[in-house]
Amino acid sequence: MTAHPGSVPDLSGLTLAEQASLSGGADFWTTKAVGEVPSLVLTDGPHGVRRQAGATDHLGLAESLPATCFPPAVGLAQSWDPDLVGRVGAALGTEAGALGVDVLLGPGINIKRDPRGGRNFEYYSEDPFLTGVLGGAWVTGLQSTGVGASLKHFAANNAEHDRMRSSSDVDPRTLREIYLRAFQRVVRTSAPWTVMCSYNRINGVYASEDHWLLTTVLREEWGFDGVVVSDWGAVRDRSASVPAGLDLEMPGDGGASDARLLAAVESGDCSPEDVRTAASRVAALAAKAAGAGRGGAARDTGTLAVGAEDVEAHHALAREVAARCVVLLRNEGGLLPLNPGGSVAVIGGFAQDPRYQGGGSSHVAPTRLDVPLEEIRALAGSGTVTFSHGYTEEGDGAGLREQAVRDAESADAAVVFLGLAEHQESEGFDREHIELPSEQLDLLAAVARAQPRTVVVLSHGGVLRLAPVAELAPAILDGALLGQAGGGAIADVLFGRVNPSGRLAETVPVRLQDTPAYLNFPGENSAVLYGEGLYVGYRWYDARETDVAFPFGHGLSYTTFAYSDLRLEQAATGVTASLTVTNTGDRAGREVVQFYVSKPDSAVSRAPRELKGFTGVTLDPGASERVSVLLSREDLAYWDVRVDGWVVEGGEYTVSAGASSRDLRAEAVVAVEGDELRLPVTLDSTLGEVLADPKAASVLAEVLAPSAAMGDSSALGMDMARMMASIPLGRLTAFGSVGREELEALIARINQEG
Amino acid sequence: MTAHPGSVPDLSGLTLAEQASLSGGADFWTTKAVGEVPSLVLTDGPHGVRRQAGATDHLGLAESLPATCFPPAVGLAQSWDPDLVGRVGAALGTEAGALGVDVLLGPGINIKRDPRGGRNFEYYSEDPFLTGVLGGAWVTGLQSTGVGASLKHFAANNAEHDRMRSSSDVDPRTLREIYLRAFQRVVRTSAPWTVMCSYNRINGVYASEDHWLLTTVLREEWGFDGVVVSDWGAVRDRSASVPAGLDLEMPGDGGASDARLLAAVESGDCSPEDVRTAASRVAALAAKAAGAGRGGAARDTGTLAVGAEDVEAHHALAREVAARCVVLLRNEGGLLPLNPGGSVAVIGGFAQDPRYQGGGSSHVAPTRLDVPLEEIRALAGSGTVTFSHGYTEEGDGAGLREQAVRDAESADAAVVFLGLAEHQESEGFDREHIELPSEQLDLLAAVARAQPRTVVVLSHGGVLRLAPVAELAPAILDGALLGQAGGGAIADVLFGRVNPSGRLAETVPVRLQDTPAYLNFPGENSAVLYGEGLYVGYRWYDARETDVAFPFGHGLSYTTFAYSDLRLEQAATGVTASLTVTNTGDRAGREVVQFYVSKPDSAVSRAPRELKGFTGVTLDPGASERVSVLLSREDLAYWDVRVDGWVVEGGEYTVSAGASSRDLRAEAVVAVEGDELRLPVTLDSTLGEVLADPKAASVLAEVLAPSAAMGDSSALGMDMARMMASIPLGRLTAFGSVGREELEALIARINQEG
Repeated sequence: MTAHPGSVPDLSGLTLAEQASLSGGADFWTTKAVGEVPSLVLTDGPHGVRRQAGATDHLGLAESLPATCFPPAVGLAQSWDPDLVGRVGAALGTEAGALGVDVLLGPGINIKRDPRGGRNFEYYSEDPFLTGVLGGAWVTGLQSTGVGASLKHFAANNAEHDRMRSSSDVDPRTLREIYLRAFQRVVRTSAPWTVMCSYNRINGVYASEDHWLLTTVLREEWGFDGVVVSDWGAVRDRSASVPAGLDLEMPGDGGASDARLLAAVESGDCSPEDVRTAASRVAALAAKAAGAGRGGAARDTGTLAVGAEDVEAHHALAREVAARCVVLLRNEGGLLPLNPGGSVAVIGGFAQDPRYQGGGSSHVAPTRLDVPLEEIRALAGSGTVTFSHGYTEEGDGAGLREQAVRDAESADAAVVFLGLAEHQESEGFDREHIELPSEQLDLLAAVARAQPRTVVVLSHGGVLRLAPVAELAPAILDGALLGQAGGGAIADVLFGRVNPSGRLAETVPVRLQDTPAYLNFPGENSAVLYGEGLYVGYRWYDARETDVAFPFGHGLSYTTFAYSDLRLEQAATGVTASLTVTNTGDRAGREVVQFYVSKPDSAVSRAPRELKGFTGVTLDPGASERVSVLLSREDLAYWDVRVDGWVVEGGEYTVSAGASSRDLRAEAVVAVEGDELRLPVTLDSTLGEVLADPKAASVLAEVLAPSAAMGDSSALGMDMARMMASIPLGRLTAFGSVGREELEALIARINQEG
Repeated sequence: MTAHPGSVPDLSGLTLAEQASLSGGADFWTTKAVGEVPSLVLTDGPHGVRRQAGATDHLGLAESLPATCFPPAVGLAQSWDPDLVGRVGAALGTEAGALGVDVLLGPGINIKRDPRGGRNFEYYSEDPFLTGVLGGAWVTGLQSTGVGASLKHFAANNAEHDRMRSSSDVDPRTLREIYLRAFQRVVRTSAPWTVMCSYNRINGVYASEDHWLLTTVLREEWGFDGVVVSDWGAVRDRSASVPAGLDLEMPGDGGASDARLLAAVESGDCSPEDVRTAASRVAALAAKAAGAGRGGAARDTGTLAVGAEDVEAHHALAREVAARCVVLLRNEGGLLPLNPGGSVAVIGGFAQDPRYQGGGSSHVAPTRLDVPLEEIRALAGSGTVTFSHGYTEEGDGAGLREQAVRDAESADAAVVFLGLAEHQESEGFDREHIELPSEQLDLLAAVARAQPRTVVVLSHGGVLRLAPVAELAPAILDGALLGQAGGGAIADVLFGRVNPSGRLAETVPVRLQDTPAYLNFPGENSAVLYGEGLYVGYRWYDARETDVAFPFGHGLSYTTFAYSDLRLEQAATGVTASLTVTNTGDRAGREVVQFYVSKPDSAVSRAPRELKGFTGVTLDPGASERVSVLLSREDLAYWDVRVDGWVVEGGEYTVSAGASSRDLRAEAVVAVEGDELRLPVTLDSTLGEVLADPKAASVLAEVLAPSAAMGDSSALGMDMARMMASIPLGRLTAFGSVGREELEALIARINQEG
């Protein structure tokens, strides 16, 4: 057997034991070399390469080699810029290659269902369209370098609480439209080399054992042809996982799991064909990686390193990206940008010791680290820049607060760094609240009293309750987590070297109590009900007409834009929306135009509006440009549980172009041709359903004369037509209106003639 | 075979065909007489006897014989008075007996999940405790007269939309604690003769075919020994229903269904034992009814009538009850009671043509009907009483409105009757909004401008958005639906002959958008997700800290009450709460004291407070009385899905005594001993669970030294202990920490030693 780079090796020469061992890891980060199938190195991402230095340990916790720490997904998503995300992916691929990595474990594209989710910082958005577009760009960028992606965590893995057992109980339409939607898009558009199945159960079935998920949906419906790898430790019973469609169990456990799999084949619990299928997919992946010129596991990690040139270039990219990810939440009186030359009081420990990535498996050892205070000093020109810590986490910082107030009073402006420390949010646990620490709010209140020109810079992985910040601070920059060059990026935006264009990828609610899953998160006794259904994020706040602190898609600029002349055209592939955007301010800037679609008279429950397209446009002052976006039929479709498929409903759709989900500036209506949907009439069809179809109604009328047969209901104060409409045909026999044989003949006629 | 009254007939002499025919109705309202088993008459209730006159028709829509129309459940529940409800039940039983009825189809005790539910007027409350107490009192009262009840609609039948197919998708804990709880209480405390299974499906299974529901839960767990009868037309496949535990299919269809059942026995789809069981239960019911001295089906309906004396007495009872059901929602400046002798402008068509019951199968032909206008005239003494219609439903009532304003201007007070007409809410359809018609609000605005002393009287079956009414009217009486004597009752309360003591049995929300099931009601494609879970009614508003217009349990009085000296004592059967209530006003009155229980540090998700007891006390001015209520252990328990049973959690409980769910006036804490709950350790137990048990932890420590084995996670910014806590024991093998055999031995030791 010879492994031709890029082709699938023939496994017929391998014993069953060898095949089984191919589908189980060698150690924490590598697969086994078996026969001529080389070993593979998989390692954590996604916002940097965490290539462990030296020997592997049980949990992969040891120090890792330096790599560029780009903004984690929570920050990256705020760019709303797939091109930039693609460039990040490509840079990551270059570094992964240099570090001998074949598959980088990302992107994480789960939907942020609840702001308390401990791993939200690793995910893009509450919206599946935005998530899918950005996740796809990342995969395409990464894989363009010959390094494989691992789309994760598949699927409905939206909380850390009891994460290895909890069942995400989700109705099928919600699963399809919200939680699987981005996975579907990325698999279809970007063909990731691997998909990582998640720890949790879905409707009672472990993702790692879910044949419907891993085979029916992923492979048969979406056409995935890569490797399904388990999240590390997600396999409970490999003899159940392999037949379900799991190809590779990670990490390796020294062969015990391989032996149990072989025993399961012998006892008939698992077929040898399933083992061979899994092994052949792993072998194909290894061949693909080998074709890309690596084979990392063989390398000595002592010799691996990101090249010096890439370190430089990627740090610059990280700064460019980070600046694009900053969201200007608020800017009363045009306080920002600051004038170089003015004095600035920088306050808060994060200015010196930035919070720039999340805790857990994605944690990267950065190649370098921009310190915000230093970057501000570098750009402040002749202006004095003071620094004070302002608070301590222990709350004993009254003296520090006084110092900060004095600094703020004597400066032209104060820039206060607030946020969450690493130990306050991380993979591994969910938050219990979304508050900023009270000592920080106390500090801000004191500083803002002393200095009306106070800017807040926020660092955090999960959404915060910002109402108290917005009440105190006239200007707020939300960096979320910006990676190793965030310090420079913040300085760039503060001083206007970059005009901010980031947009929120998550709604900031007024209160935690307003959030969709408030009472259903994180579940109990190993189950969590997705009771809010489709209404996640802005879909919920819009449908319930609930005030929010800052809406999904929100983000200000140092200039202003006007929208005009929205036009919609139906095409075979969807609806083309075009619009003229004009920079009406005095500064060049980038505007993210968002297209939200509504179907107000829909036959199914729908959010008032859903993001179905967006695009960025950079304009000089006074300049105009016409932008155009395709709102694809795939994205207009809803999941119809009756036919178990995507269906475009016919009729009028409203398309709104907005600068945020609640700043809609243009609206137009377009007629869309619907998919044909013909449901046969059965004994369970209601009278109302049959009567809604004129042909069927006329057949029915020959046999039944409902009003005559059913008597006069006026004595009961009842609307008999409405009451009757919900009666299934089969029940008419109970009321003696018709016999069963007559009814069945009638139904046959309706189905034949219809 | 001889049917001994009150004993179960021996069916051994009956053929299988005869047995099958016993378990299927004869016609719309009766069962078959078979052998010596007499026929039974079942007929609609529950707030009056709807005994159809003359021959039966297909849908039971024909005119019915006169009977007292008591307040429908929506009104009755506002009494919060089980004694009074019991008296209503007994009066209904007397009338049912006189009308030859064996089983009266009530009470309806479904939970009001959403204010739009079309049949909410037939149900008591959003709270299962209040529902169960009142429903039980009704059954006990009715059955004390030898007439059987039919507890309905079993179960989770909370919407009219697609009601014969829709699946109520409810998680097990919610089903037990909210939707089955009142059924359990009434079955256990009041032993209804029959239970009526509902149209809908529950988690995909038709109630009429749900063995778990009709047999495991109802009979085996709760000890029900009566007949399960189908809702009319609820049987889809009798050969599936009979084995599930359905005893009687209604209505009869002329024998076709009996024949199909026999065919199913022949083909082996249904066992003859199941058919015999069903038949014997119907026979036992017939024997019980015969023992009570009836056998109604044999009677000529032409000779049946409620006796003249009962007509009088029951109308008086209906007035007493109705007055107790009136809720004084608002009474600014002590506007009410009105002084007899003052002039009153009565406005609105409902004053002349009252809305007093709901539409649909429960509709009763009243023995007489109090007209509010006449009753007000009767009590107004020397005062002038004018009447004007004020509006038309068509909205062309500008002239009427002007007349009403003129009347209001010239009177000492205006009483405006507002509400929903019969065609705006009914069995058979759900409402789409909770608004009062705009022409009524326009009228009220005009009248209130002209007359500051404006009282609104509300008539409606479902909750209304009352914010606009409360903004305009200083006084509001909420009668809901009050039955045939409501007119007199309203006059009694208006003029202070009765001091109102009714309390809301349902929260009045600020907006429909705030309601728990807003986005999950009524479902689509024949399924409705109970996504709000346990958080129905006040449980939701309290948990989300949402403002409401009027809270659950709210109701004012013409006097005032003070609460003092709340004491709690743990007893074997629960917690006894006692409290002193003092009438601090100048008028005798009745106070409904409500006891809400909280378990703030509960291991499971719970509402901030739940009603677990209430009592009424009538006091003269200045008088005090000590009231005492048992908060039973059964009611303190939650449903634990791990053991599939009710469990009392040990620890401290807070008990609040309130005049409403948001007017809590006394609070105390009591320690409650918990039920022992020992869960065996398995491969799926998490490290955190094992470590929480000191004994198990010490066993585990001998084998595993997690911190040492797991490496140092500080490099990842992670709290390893929290991360590890969620790992199931079985997955430790994947991380190479321990072998499977060693682990299994360890678990065995823990379970043995624990």
